Amino acid sequence: MGFQRIAILGCGLIGGSFALGLKRNGYSGDIIAWDREETLQKAKQRGAIDWGTTSVSEALAGADMVYLATPVMVILELLPQLGQHAKPGALVTDAGSTKVRICNLARRALPEQVVFLGGHPMAGRERGGVENAGPDLFVGSKYLLIPEAREEEEDKNRKNDAVEEFLGWVRRLGAEPIFLDAATHDWAVALISQVPQLLSTALASAVWDECDDDGLALRLAARGFREMTRLAASPYDIWRDICLTNSDNLERALERLEQQLAYLRTHLRSSDLAQAFEKARRTCATLRGAGGGGTDK
Amino acid sequence: MGFQRIAILGCGLIGGSFALGLKRNGYSGDIIAWDREETLQKAKQRGAIDWGTTSVSEALAGADMVYLATPVMVILELLPQLGQHAKPGALVTDAGSTKVRICNLARRALPEQVVFLGGHPMAGRERGGVENAGPDLFVGSKYLLIPEAREEEEDKNRKNDAVEEFLGWVRRLGAEPIFLDAATHDWAVALISQVPQLLSTALASAVWDECDDDGLALRLAARGFREMTRLAASPYDIWRDICLTNSDNLERALERLEQQLAYLRTHLRSSDLAQAFEKARRTCATLRGAGGGGTDK
Repeated sequence: MGFQRIAILGCGLIGGSFALGLKRNGYSGDIIAWDREETLQKAKQRGAIDWGTTSVSEALAGADMVYLATPVMVILELLPQLGQHAKPGALVTDAGSTKVRICNLARRALPEQVVFLGGHPMAGRERGGVENAGPDLFVGSKYLLIPEAREEEEDKNRKNDAVEEFLGWVRRLGAEPIFLDAATHDWAVALISQVPQLLSTALASAVWDECDDDGLALRLAARGFREMTRLAASPYDIWRDICLTNSDNLERALERLEQQLAYLRTHLRSSDLAQAFEKARRTCATLRGAGGGGTDK
Repeated sequence: MGFQRIAILGCGLIGGSFALGLKRNGYSGDIIAWDREETLQKAKQRGAIDWGTTSVSEALAGADMVYLATPVMVILELLPQLGQHAKPGALVTDAGSTKVRICNLARRALPEQVVFLGGHPMAGRERGGVENAGPDLFVGSKYLLIPEAREEEEDKNRKNDAVEEFLGWVRRLGAEPIFLDAATHDWAVALISQVPQLLSTALASAVWDECDDDGLALRLAARGFREMTRLAASPYDIWRDICLTNSDNLERALERLEQQLAYLRTHLRSSDLAQAFEKARRTCATLRGAGGGGTDK
């Protein structure tokens, strides 16, 4: 038993770091990757993978565990192919940042004999790509997991074994597994991960529009502004897929924020502003009280 | 010539750090402070000041330089008293975060023989108070300065001497002086300092409203959210005065941001979103290209 062969589909920052983390932490089976040739070369040079292929079916052949770490839309394209080619009994898991669309499709596209576990490692770096991957990427981070909805008694033991083995690796890589359902996940991350990203983008974009040719305002920018716009440097191609696959939640969360901003704007001269500062203070106090690693994404 | 005696009115984080910076950098005259008795005791224990008083006129008597480092509304209350008690020939400068209201009042309230230089050190720490002050607070930061509007030829030399002496201390404390007019200052800091603060407050406050009793979303918060809400822990009493004295600019800047967020919200499913990400990317690239210290406020 155990994962003798692991296939990483999409060997960028997350997939590459997962592979490097496995090797660092004593995984002795084969790690094979599917990606573009150029990426596979880099991944081999980094020592992340044993071999690579540009053929999905070749990557999947004989893999006991499949790790999907492409952008979300590519995961959605890959799942039907997994339905055809994944080894019966294999565990398939993904690292996409939105979960409802992926988990729903996995339920439809994958056969009963394949175990699917939706995943979202809350880890990242400012620069993507396997060249920035590292075995410590997940240390101190939270690893969100969506248990499979269809749980038939006879399959449970087998599924539990595969899921437990995967959880063991997640913990060995330094992350904390947290289980929640897909809908709760997508609303929560809209609020605490995706809206902050879009807020950062909105701020940096608005300031770009407002800056004179001499860019005076930007020359005056201090730590607060730099911090509030760090996320804004994130590449659009990852966020496009997130926005496309979590748009209802994002619309709702962005509306809340616009309302909150309008409230602040119309109460600048009123002591009612104190209420918003007090709620914000409580959020910050809860965050700090919650402790835990602050090194994740 | 030279500042034989310096009076610090308001000996908190900024006033205390300015005093400690002077002493660390070789200032050998007297430093006296006006504040509450409790704060004066702490400032003396920290070695920031030579003596303190709770009487404004006592603090001003014989001071060649007056450093106003209270919240903005208190600066506005103090200026008329300075008109009565400041020593002829003294340099008066302030550390308030908004400049139009202060500089306009200073022009009306201070006699011709007093030199006024509006100031805004772009430095801060998460925790205020003289107990968190330090001589290195200004190192690597920008120190915004508003030249006096009324410049009569006969006074220029005297004024230049006092201003040059002050600039010398600003540089010795490690800050970079930048001159600009009050209206430009207030719009620029609304955009790159005050709106980011209010955005951080809005995000933290909105998330507080949306969190269930179990606070699940907050438990999932990672580095991005922590960073985007760090400013939200700032105390309301400082921001109240900033909002009150820069409300027109803040209204305009917040409206721009609400428009930008509404644009993102209504284009989540469209490739037009790429434009906003591209503008944001340019802002971030300009910020990094601009280089300079990232350790300020």
